[in-house]
Amino acid sequence: MNISIIGLGLIGGSFAKDLRKAGLATELLGVEASPAHAERAVQLGLVDRAVPLEEALRLSDVLLLAVPVDAIETLLPKVLDAVRPTQTVIDLGSTKFQLAESVRNHPNRERYVAAHPMAGTENAGPDAALEGLFRGKTVLLCDLEWSAPDACKTALELFHAVGLKFEFMNSDQHDRHAAYVSHLSHVAAYALSLAVQTEEKAGYAVPRLAGGGFASTVRLAKSSPEMWVPIFKQNREHVLRAIDAFSERLQEFRRALDANDYAKLETLIRDANHIRDLL
Amino acid sequence: MNISIIGLGLIGGSFAKDLRKAGLATELLGVEASPAHAERAVQLGLVDRAVPLEEALRLSDVLLLAVPVDAIETLLPKVLDAVRPTQTVIDLGSTKFQLAESVRNHPNRERYVAAHPMAGTENAGPDAALEGLFRGKTVLLCDLEWSAPDACKTALELFHAVGLKFEFMNSDQHDRHAAYVSHLSHVAAYALSLAVQTEEKAGYAVPRLAGGGFASTVRLAKSSPEMWVPIFKQNREHVLRAIDAFSERLQEFRRALDANDYAKLETLIRDANHIRDLL
Repeated sequence: MNISIIGLGLIGGSFAKDLRKAGLATELLGVEASPAHAERAVQLGLVDRAVPLEEALRLSDVLLLAVPVDAIETLLPKVLDAVRPTQTVIDLGSTKFQLAESVRNHPNRERYVAAHPMAGTENAGPDAALEGLFRGKTVLLCDLEWSAPDACKTALELFHAVGLKFEFMNSDQHDRHAAYVSHLSHVAAYALSLAVQTEEKAGYAVPRLAGGGFASTVRLAKSSPEMWVPIFKQNREHVLRAIDAFSERLQEFRRALDANDYAKLETLIRDANHIRDLL
Repeated sequence: MNISIIGLGLIGGSFAKDLRKAGLATELLGVEASPAHAERAVQLGLVDRAVPLEEALRLSDVLLLAVPVDAIETLLPKVLDAVRPTQTVIDLGSTKFQLAESVRNHPNRERYVAAHPMAGTENAGPDAALEGLFRGKTVLLCDLEWSAPDACKTALELFHAVGLKFEFMNSDQHDRHAAYVSHLSHVAAYALSLAVQTEEKAGYAVPRLAGGGFASTVRLAKSSPEMWVPIFKQNREHVLRAIDAFSERLQEFRRALDANDYAKLETLIRDANHIRDLL
């Protein structure tokens, strides 16, 4: 199978590594807007060579879109315009509803499979690619009723090869779900980073003195705006609601502390502890 | 040197492991309120034997207090009442100001060294003890001007043996600092856990589908109320202010998204990214 990966950053590069290891790709091509990233990806052996999108479209059985979600939205209709009935197009973006709507009536819609592998790190670019990033993680597959059975089969084969487990939902469910278990975590980490940096300027809270707990909670605040602004934009409604729900629980916690209501504080913490059973 | 560790949980147990490995302790005694934990700690070889506090006070050169901060506040004056001029008492609690005030005028105050090793995990009890937990981390040493030089020297020797780096500050600075780089992270994680659980009950946001990012951000929400309610209580003022600062940045983020102001969102994220340089 000839596979092209559009976008050779963390996600695309990690897929390239694991697909190669799984021996699934006859040839692994890369399409990358940044010449420096393209060169580096070939140097690292992530792909056999970097080619223009047109060549990837001509030569590949499968095209994996692993660029930021705003770029996917621009790219997907163009790719579907050119796709042949034997080819499969899969996107790996973190938002799904707006994208789903944008190609809903495209004549080649059934060649496309919408997917979101729930895995990543705070790093970006070809050097951030990690072998085994997806192993044991979950890929959320959306609106499969609109994809051709053979396209679904190809997508599942690729995802299985890199160790992903499958879950199925529609793209609106996906976006509400992702707002909570992924996008909100990023908002919380960004806000924590900003609050601590303000304090740092006042001469306190030097983060380098912090233990592993702070580092863990704030880790996602290192994630780039290039990837995340488009995600927040495309999932604005659900993210706003998630921030409000989070803010409400934060204020509940604050009120209990302010009122010296330590029984309430204990109840809140004990309830929060249940996350142990859910993860 | 005979060393007693009061409280054989995560922190006390981890100290025991590393002190033993460093060969610093002639005898390692444990004092533990829970008979089950005491038995388990001996079984795990964390300490040579579990003894009552009185015996630890009689036999030890150094006493390390590694119990929750409310228990430290009850225990420390009693220990100082009985301490001899050749003995050193060190507490490892996460709050410092209230405790410092409570023994400020104690006649044996100079035998006591106030310390906070910035290391830990979300787990508790003797089984949570980890070898190397403190290696490369920082211990915040507070108000050393009120401790005898030989007591300081003993404390530094122990902390150096387990791989901790030193920073010095007064206990009020400490509490403001800790509110941001430790206590606030816990509040944010608790609120995130509570918000996601509410959503889970509505049939969305199943945390087991989440990737590593959510797990990392919410990890501290597993921390027990037994340890954390007393910390929030003792550091109430600073924690309330830290929550307000965090809440303000969260709302700034929300307002930008609500207003579709993606240039502002990008600036906020880029500023948040600077945490990379500070950690």
